[in-house]
Amino acid sequence: MAVLLNSQLGGDPEDPHSPYNDELIFSKGHASPLLYAMLRAVGAISEEELLTYRRAGSRLEGHPTPRLPWVKVATGSLGQGLPVAVGLALTAATLDRLPIRVWVLCGDSELSEGSMWEAFAHAGYTHLDRLTAIIDVNRLGQRGPTPLGWDTAAYAERIGAFGWHTIEIDGHDLDQIEDAYAEAVATSGRPTAILARTVKGRGVPEIEDRNGFHGKPVPHPQPAIERLGGVRHLQVMLPRPVPERPPHRFPDGELDLPRWDIGEQVATRAAFGAALVALGTARGDVVALDGEVSDSTRTGMFEQAHPERFFQFFIAEQQMLAAAIGMQARGWLPYAATFAAFLTRAHDFIRMASISRASMCLVGSHAGVEIGQDGPSQMGLEDLAMMRALHGSTVLYPCDANQTAKLVAAMADGNGIRYLRTTRGATPVIYGPNDEFPIGGSRVLRYSEADEVTLVGAGVTVHQALRAADQLAGDGIPARVIDLYSIKPVDVDTLLAAARDTGRLVTVEDHRPEGGLGDAVCEAVAGAMRPPMIRRLAVRDMPASATPTEQLRAAGLDADTIAASARDLVWR
Amino acid sequence: MAVLLNSQLGGDPEDPHSPYNDELIFSKGHASPLLYAMLRAVGAISEEELLTYRRAGSRLEGHPTPRLPWVKVATGSLGQGLPVAVGLALTAATLDRLPIRVWVLCGDSELSEGSMWEAFAHAGYTHLDRLTAIIDVNRLGQRGPTPLGWDTAAYAERIGAFGWHTIEIDGHDLDQIEDAYAEAVATSGRPTAILARTVKGRGVPEIEDRNGFHGKPVPHPQPAIERLGGVRHLQVMLPRPVPERPPHRFPDGELDLPRWDIGEQVATRAAFGAALVALGTARGDVVALDGEVSDSTRTGMFEQAHPERFFQFFIAEQQMLAAAIGMQARGWLPYAATFAAFLTRAHDFIRMASISRASMCLVGSHAGVEIGQDGPSQMGLEDLAMMRALHGSTVLYPCDANQTAKLVAAMADGNGIRYLRTTRGATPVIYGPNDEFPIGGSRVLRYSEADEVTLVGAGVTVHQALRAADQLAGDGIPARVIDLYSIKPVDVDTLLAAARDTGRLVTVEDHRPEGGLGDAVCEAVAGAMRPPMIRRLAVRDMPASATPTEQLRAAGLDADTIAASARDLVWR
Repeated sequence: MAVLLNSQLGGDPEDPHSPYNDELIFSKGHASPLLYAMLRAVGAISEEELLTYRRAGSRLEGHPTPRLPWVKVATGSLGQGLPVAVGLALTAATLDRLPIRVWVLCGDSELSEGSMWEAFAHAGYTHLDRLTAIIDVNRLGQRGPTPLGWDTAAYAERIGAFGWHTIEIDGHDLDQIEDAYAEAVATSGRPTAILARTVKGRGVPEIEDRNGFHGKPVPHPQPAIERLGGVRHLQVMLPRPVPERPPHRFPDGELDLPRWDIGEQVATRAAFGAALVALGTARGDVVALDGEVSDSTRTGMFEQAHPERFFQFFIAEQQMLAAAIGMQARGWLPYAATFAAFLTRAHDFIRMASISRASMCLVGSHAGVEIGQDGPSQMGLEDLAMMRALHGSTVLYPCDANQTAKLVAAMADGNGIRYLRTTRGATPVIYGPNDEFPIGGSRVLRYSEADEVTLVGAGVTVHQALRAADQLAGDGIPARVIDLYSIKPVDVDTLLAAARDTGRLVTVEDHRPEGGLGDAVCEAVAGAMRPPMIRRLAVRDMPASATPTEQLRAAGLDADTIAASARDLVWR
Repeated sequence: MAVLLNSQLGGDPEDPHSPYNDELIFSKGHASPLLYAMLRAVGAISEEELLTYRRAGSRLEGHPTPRLPWVKVATGSLGQGLPVAVGLALTAATLDRLPIRVWVLCGDSELSEGSMWEAFAHAGYTHLDRLTAIIDVNRLGQRGPTPLGWDTAAYAERIGAFGWHTIEIDGHDLDQIEDAYAEAVATSGRPTAILARTVKGRGVPEIEDRNGFHGKPVPHPQPAIERLGGVRHLQVMLPRPVPERPPHRFPDGELDLPRWDIGEQVATRAAFGAALVALGTARGDVVALDGEVSDSTRTGMFEQAHPERFFQFFIAEQQMLAAAIGMQARGWLPYAATFAAFLTRAHDFIRMASISRASMCLVGSHAGVEIGQDGPSQMGLEDLAMMRALHGSTVLYPCDANQTAKLVAAMADGNGIRYLRTTRGATPVIYGPNDEFPIGGSRVLRYSEADEVTLVGAGVTVHQALRAADQLAGDGIPARVIDLYSIKPVDVDTLLAAARDTGRLVTVEDHRPEGGLGDAVCEAVAGAMRPPMIRRLAVRDMPASATPTEQLRAAGLDADTIAASARDLVWR
């Protein structure tokens, strides 16, 4: 890192968000003291701040986070920095079109993570020759030796097979390091991996190359500092980047959302695809990311309309999410879509995205048992729980095409991680194209002052709830119906009013009973002075293959079951 | 697959659970019609059942699941079959010690999943020479060409670099296939990957090698069937395995759980480690799996005591989970442990494990902000939401060492996926070593008939709640305290009684507000005739580095905040 600072890294420490700065990512986030020492050396932080490391209120956390402005993305869950760096390099090369370089410091242990190989594969496939991975092969993981030890040749063979240029060096030889960086910079058409054989704790005999000292302070720091050359106050002046051209931008235009007539049958995933095309025309910063299912999620429509802003990651959901994190870190607005079920594959990346304060949109299609015959492996049944539990997330679940279009546009203006859940099959359009659906709102679809029970649904279950209300009306039970399209934030006022007015709620969701709409409703009304009685309908068994209609009935989410639950509450 | 049936696969279709059968996994689960046709050919299922494919009530789901007894693990989320097969092969070789073979049919698209490379790495590292991956290189994914097309040499170079023997063949040439299988069987010391170049839809000109027909019925089946040779009713008699020896088993012994004295300070993760050692002595079927953090989770203690039943997967959580799925499928009882935060890395594998009806134990350490200085990337703050939303799961969160030991033993006897959440720092022992903690139960730690409010915690927050109750007693407010160590199933009766008796609940959890203890309590009391008022304390902001005590206070989980919330409810 000293050599990198001295000979390669370009950037303006006083303007950490400049698009012309080179990017440096610590994929081995636990090496944070080294990163902070570098920031001290370039004058970004003071000696005093350096000594606040890991203390309450400090920007210098145990693992780097964007609490410190020179840290663009949080690391600390291993195997994520390289995939995110691939996203940064891809963004710089294809969207910003700026000749910056992306440097990543990786550990050898984290090469066991499959996500690293998704990154090697994608960087090789896209020829990211401005990306350099520096792999610290110190042979010792947290609890013992790594599988390959110091066999840098084995690493080189693997990484080389994925289309990378590789260089093996002694990671303590400054000349070899300098030469390797120069070779990396001179390599075109391929990214470069520098496999640096190092000795963990080198220069401090009591810990050097010894197991059991990972993540621990040096036992006797004073003699160690002296052995390593004593206290120094090195200052490095980075070369300030000289911009040749501004970052490339795509033009903005008018927002002309698609419109559907009431009564049409349209899948919300199709409405999402059409709306994303319109949004992409209106906003040049919108990009779409696919995990090899664009024909199913309907991001394929965006690919047709805006091919330069469409990114294919094949079946590598972790790399797709990491790239989205990288893209938003450079100011773009990603919409990354796959089946809701397969977003679980990238859960740890989504979790780290929230720690990175990432601003991005995720779309999960094929939600719930409604998908029908393909069976449970393809059903998103836990996605609401996963997305709701993220810090600062927004969770949306539309029931018709016009509502979907409005939410696709609204989520563009939000913060944090916004999640849209779409449905495979067609549902009737029940809203007009001029209706508005603010995030945090809901729609009361049936209402009277005499309502005795409230049915709360979202997505496919809204339509079942409406039919259940018709049945209940036939029994002389007036029922309120709420379309809770915004699961988080949730419309507490409308739910509290329904609780107060009707005293009885039936929640219906095409999702597991835990963590989704039912829990959101319960939380919302938990503060009521007179809390309501609540019945929660959700997918409680393990579904198999069946038609969508059979699935909804088998799971107890159909109009008959909703009406029966409501009657039971009213007549108990 | 026809050649495999004809020349290699051994097994007894009438005894699908026999340990002597070869294993066959369809990693490309969407090829299910081929699997079902094979089962028809060996006489396992009837012609009539074959025609129930994807219908309600059928065992022949769109993607294979263990609803059909010949399917040991569910597939359909791509990239999982090979890692699970690695688990099966590892189990057969090192635990059962039986000379069965494991065959896996993989797609080429799924080679983009990082989890496949975790599997290639682990199988190479462990020299699983009885494992053969057959990779159907048909060059077309769901929505278009794969990155490598028909370049089987590129695949071979990559897979070979991970320590596999590779064979490239024309996947339509029966002799080449037969020779490749023979070569795989003859290869020792390394697993074999057969890269079979195939043409998707071969023999049916209207779809052959054409995009846009993935997952769709053949447009004109009758001429297609005729071109392919007409309707046949092939029957294949598999060679029945001839057992030379029974599966290896480790001896069972007495269960002698560790015991701690009340007042000792012990981390629940340490208690878990010690209890797992005792359980391993009592039960020979218990195995432990690590993701390179055994010194942190304390599975390292099991490694010391029972080295033959300890498995190191390095930092590859997906492969660790997949191996656990494979081990339980062959009758072993896995305890797989890593940081709670890093279990999110394997979320999709855990999800598929529930569809596989897997019986296994997961342990997540370093839960919550309590970990202190390392910061949010290392904090399990969403794990309860993830684990609760799994079908049939059990979620346990002990607060002291003796309770932990009892729960580690109790979860061995459960079903489905059992999750134990442990804490990094030491907490005081408050229970005696003879206390019992049934799953689904709770402990009422403070109780009087005059209680005006109930404090519900688990893990670290139990201790804060006890101190809050002391404070409240000083204010003349008698407070009930419930240790809700079983988050799922939850003790509805005790919570309903508290709701009825006190009318006010304060829930406290070292977890995000969504999907965890607070939601579990709300669901439990939602059915009450007079539901209580509920205040929910949870981690609502983004934590940084700080001491554990500072973290609990900053998140509002400390005794002062709990007491203030309770007072507010009582005095409002």
